[in-house]
Amino acid sequence: MVTDENLGMKEMDITSMPSSRHHVDNLPYVHKVGVPPPHNLLKEFKATVKETFFSDDPLRPFKDQPRSRKFVLGLQTIFPIFKWGRDYNLLKLKGDIISGLTIASLCIPQDIGYAKLVKLPAENGLYSSFVPPLIYAFMGSSKDIAIGPVAVVSLLLGTLLQDEIDPIKNAEEYKRLAFTATFFAGITQAALGFFRLGFLIDFLSHAAIVGFMGGAAITIALQQLKGFLGIKNFTKKTDIISVMRAVWTAAHHGWNWQTILIGTAFLAFLLFAKYIGKRSRKLFWVPAIAPLISVILSTFFVFITRADKQGVQIVNHIKQGVNPSSVHLIYFSGDYLAKGFRIGVVAGMIALTEAIAIGRTFAGMKDYQLDGNKEMLALGTMNVVGSMTSCYVATGSFSRSAVNYMAGCQTAVSNIVMSLVVLLTLLVITPLFKYTPNAILAAIIISAVISLIDYDAALLIWKIDKLDFVACMGAFFGVVFFSVEIGLLIAVSISFAKILLQVTRPRTAMLGKLPRTHVYRNIDQYPEATKVPGALIVRVDSAIYFSNSNYVKERILRWLTDEEEQLKAQSLPRIEFLIVEMSPVTDIDTSGIHALEELYRSLKKREIQLVLANPGQAVIDKLHTSDFANLIGSDKIFLTVADAVLTCMPKISDEA
Amino acid sequence: MVTDENLGMKEMDITSMPSSRHHVDNLPYVHKVGVPPPHNLLKEFKATVKETFFSDDPLRPFKDQPRSRKFVLGLQTIFPIFKWGRDYNLLKLKGDIISGLTIASLCIPQDIGYAKLVKLPAENGLYSSFVPPLIYAFMGSSKDIAIGPVAVVSLLLGTLLQDEIDPIKNAEEYKRLAFTATFFAGITQAALGFFRLGFLIDFLSHAAIVGFMGGAAITIALQQLKGFLGIKNFTKKTDIISVMRAVWTAAHHGWNWQTILIGTAFLAFLLFAKYIGKRSRKLFWVPAIAPLISVILSTFFVFITRADKQGVQIVNHIKQGVNPSSVHLIYFSGDYLAKGFRIGVVAGMIALTEAIAIGRTFAGMKDYQLDGNKEMLALGTMNVVGSMTSCYVATGSFSRSAVNYMAGCQTAVSNIVMSLVVLLTLLVITPLFKYTPNAILAAIIISAVISLIDYDAALLIWKIDKLDFVACMGAFFGVVFFSVEIGLLIAVSISFAKILLQVTRPRTAMLGKLPRTHVYRNIDQYPEATKVPGALIVRVDSAIYFSNSNYVKERILRWLTDEEEQLKAQSLPRIEFLIVEMSPVTDIDTSGIHALEELYRSLKKREIQLVLANPGQAVIDKLHTSDFANLIGSDKIFLTVADAVLTCMPKISDEA
Repeated sequence: MVTDENLGMKEMDITSMPSSRHHVDNLPYVHKVGVPPPHNLLKEFKATVKETFFSDDPLRPFKDQPRSRKFVLGLQTIFPIFKWGRDYNLLKLKGDIISGLTIASLCIPQDIGYAKLVKLPAENGLYSSFVPPLIYAFMGSSKDIAIGPVAVVSLLLGTLLQDEIDPIKNAEEYKRLAFTATFFAGITQAALGFFRLGFLIDFLSHAAIVGFMGGAAITIALQQLKGFLGIKNFTKKTDIISVMRAVWTAAHHGWNWQTILIGTAFLAFLLFAKYIGKRSRKLFWVPAIAPLISVILSTFFVFITRADKQGVQIVNHIKQGVNPSSVHLIYFSGDYLAKGFRIGVVAGMIALTEAIAIGRTFAGMKDYQLDGNKEMLALGTMNVVGSMTSCYVATGSFSRSAVNYMAGCQTAVSNIVMSLVVLLTLLVITPLFKYTPNAILAAIIISAVISLIDYDAALLIWKIDKLDFVACMGAFFGVVFFSVEIGLLIAVSISFAKILLQVTRPRTAMLGKLPRTHVYRNIDQYPEATKVPGALIVRVDSAIYFSNSNYVKERILRWLTDEEEQLKAQSLPRIEFLIVEMSPVTDIDTSGIHALEELYRSLKKREIQLVLANPGQAVIDKLHTSDFANLIGSDKIFLTVADAVLTCMPKISDEA
Repeated sequence: MVTDENLGMKEMDITSMPSSRHHVDNLPYVHKVGVPPPHNLLKEFKATVKETFFSDDPLRPFKDQPRSRKFVLGLQTIFPIFKWGRDYNLLKLKGDIISGLTIASLCIPQDIGYAKLVKLPAENGLYSSFVPPLIYAFMGSSKDIAIGPVAVVSLLLGTLLQDEIDPIKNAEEYKRLAFTATFFAGITQAALGFFRLGFLIDFLSHAAIVGFMGGAAITIALQQLKGFLGIKNFTKKTDIISVMRAVWTAAHHGWNWQTILIGTAFLAFLLFAKYIGKRSRKLFWVPAIAPLISVILSTFFVFITRADKQGVQIVNHIKQGVNPSSVHLIYFSGDYLAKGFRIGVVAGMIALTEAIAIGRTFAGMKDYQLDGNKEMLALGTMNVVGSMTSCYVATGSFSRSAVNYMAGCQTAVSNIVMSLVVLLTLLVITPLFKYTPNAILAAIIISAVISLIDYDAALLIWKIDKLDFVACMGAFFGVVFFSVEIGLLIAVSISFAKILLQVTRPRTAMLGKLPRTHVYRNIDQYPEATKVPGALIVRVDSAIYFSNSNYVKERILRWLTDEEEQLKAQSLPRIEFLIVEMSPVTDIDTSGIHALEELYRSLKKREIQLVLANPGQAVIDKLHTSDFANLIGSDKIFLTVADAVLTCMPKISDEA
């Protein structure tokens, strides 16, 4: 039988018959395994640093440009608006105005509600929808993201802040700590972008995020029961058991039926609007403006009936005017500095994860590239500036970004439009919110966060990867039954455990020859594959590092022992060659080389030859520098398993 | 041109010429990618748990055995002595007695010196060479390891204990904390073994251990300057700067020339003995007994000259008698419980790492299997019992195990012999050590720890893997310039960073066709490989997980963009197919599937077809359950790159 390799010898192709080939040229043509040229240390180091931190090659456009052009390019890099702004036209503006108005109508009631979630005055929510989106429009590279306060970050920030300060007794200090945390959230985000450490957020797996978001959505919805049922004394804890107990104890005297009536009616209306929007993509604007309509209707209703005198809680006063400066409120020293820093880092990371996930989703849908590190710098700057203008942590909102996209936004100008509408609201309309019932805000938040619970994603995760599902459920139940932090901790821990498991216990497989080919594959996956008599072919499915080198060695020896026992039982010929298919072994370190040496010695004692097939560039390089290649003999390293079988056992491979 | 695949169709082999094959049968024979049968969840879970925790299949011998036999097997599992003891004979005993006596002569002076390193009375060192080796002999599975106090663990334990309690002012509490730490070190070790978490110690990489050991050796040698120079007031810190400063300030009044003379003379003797032992393997006993000879000679010398009256410090009193019980001394409550626990965990882990490394080395040399988890259980039990009999943490000693091996030890009986000699010493000889000068102990320790500095290993690490070398040097300088704990922390951190880097930034490669074959390989490694016109072939060298899925997607698109630019510049035909070689992609999770979907969509927009080659079992399974296989079309998934090229571009591959 022939291999593809000797067929390549064109001069023989026609003259000799395949099945007699070996006996003609005696030694088959075997392609040598490429030994890369000795590499330069500095060059290698540079390449590693480049792939780790500058994998997107950010300086490429700057190459070979005159200085003035470099300046313009630099400016465009930091402020992408100068790049896309030059192609801006009226048509795009039309799309941006429509989408901007739509998301503004959605964000104003949400902002007021989310501010309650952080236990900050309502105006701080509106402030956060004015300054940050403006900054982002200049610096961000996503065309579709809608910036502002979001539910999950509001909940997280509120929970973390309340652990330190009581928001009612020490309202002023609480607000100061909130700005401090926002400042450090921004600094964290900008630093990650600046130092190109954006890949760190990749360590929160998709599955963990799905679970965390779902859990947070439920927690947020539960929190809304306070406003929804008109309960005055509510628990500070967020876990489902404390909340349900609080709801229950309030049932006898604390529920307000007028509030429940208003809330239920409008929640039904909002959910119905959502349903309509889902049914027909053209009617996307129905759920988008439903919240504002609810607010207007309910406010008017309360104003007419003076239901607030019946115990229906209302928003009351929202401060009029634009964002006041809050630079002097940030703690730059003292005890609260460290606390604000810690809270800021956590909230900033979560906000970042959400924004980047949204940005990537929509960039994928419109097929443009999103620069993660640049994006982080933009988000960071916007939060730093936000913290100095009475805003709390803003980020990209899932629901509003989707509406923005469907309303036909073209560029970040839609964020500017939204921001201007919020400005107008702050300047003129805030007094009108006085009679808005809290129950409406609760209903709006409930209908908004419901879409964060992604059953389909969870189901898909269950189908694809069970361990991922454990991470997902861990995060979910952690948030629901304990707290946001615990859920987050569980999510991160399981994600890490998965990585560690991957590198400690790599897969291995026994290979067999696929009939009618010279291809060797896992005999588990291809039951038709047949073992080669006299040889055991094993594939190692991972780089061999200190964390798994011992396992790999012992696992290979176990394959061998198992196989030998079987052969003995069937009194078949013994194994003479152990062929290790190294294709998936992308790298090896000193511990790995040691393990191979030990394997070689063990095999030698058993009179079995160790043969390697297709070691990659990094591996072959290290096999040579460590002299292991000489130890086993360079002639024991082959380009393919087929070559190895052919050379070691010419007879057998002929017969096959 | 033919592929190996169609050659397999035997009925056609002779009748058709290779070069016309395709045109004859029109569609080449392409082997289907194996889709594994739907798997059972419980089975999969069991398999994962088995590979993670029971990869050595410890219950295999128990299968299908009668109950009585199971009991015997169980007994033999816990106490291997009942297994190998049955084949024990006089010849083996001879070897064990010789080696046992040799290591005893080596360990007695070392024990006294190491006890000083932990700041415990000398007798505690000797106690630790009596009880633990006895226990180990019954439970351990290594034939060559020599159990007892070792330099590095003594230093580490001493440093950690001194951070909590002053060993001179509160000698009694200090001793109690030492036993508490020993107790928890044993519990930690036994627990790791019992819960089969032994793989955790694999997270300390070989390189980090080399660096840590080297640094510890230097630190220990520096500590000996106190005894060696006869300095009375010495610093408590262990970093090189503090120690050198202490030595320097003592130079004017604190050095004792008689001490230096004795120390230097015997150090020279010891090093010379070491040199002889290295020169000829037969003379291994010279360095082995040199320490005891030095002790005897110098003790006699001091006794005759009464040099102790000239300021030469001597050992003075060593308590006579066997180990007293210390159960009542262990802190089981109070503040010191937590501290002892923390110290115990750290010291226990390091002791474990050293013992397992030694055990594996010698097991490899004699080609027997060492059961890591069983070994941990043995070491743990021996330290728990040790902590109750006035011992501190014992483990396997590098130097004494090597001597044991060279002296021809056959089984763990050599440890029993050593332990009996130590018992005899404790009962009878201790008073004779009264006049032993401390300088001799210092010289013995210096000559012992010197061999822990492994230049060759460090050099090899430098040659093989630069990042490993950074870990090695980080640990080394951390220990030397800061402290043992800092060095350890650096070693662990760099080891982890390396794992994370591996999973975040996997390698990718562009493949080309090797001339005269149908094998596709990295064009960097094989410069003779040629690209296939119209197709870009990329290999991803890692499982695609959440931590790298975005990077992988973006990296592939970057390969594509780069290649397209080049082709454009040379006005060559555009790329129509992107073939991803998936052989090294051993697994994929939901984030990975998402990334592939995004890649598919991006490519679709550019009118490029996505083709996958050789996805493994786990991957193909998930591609199907996630419906991604249907999205790109099952006909776009091939067994090999050659098949893919052949099917997608029959013309091109014919021409090649």
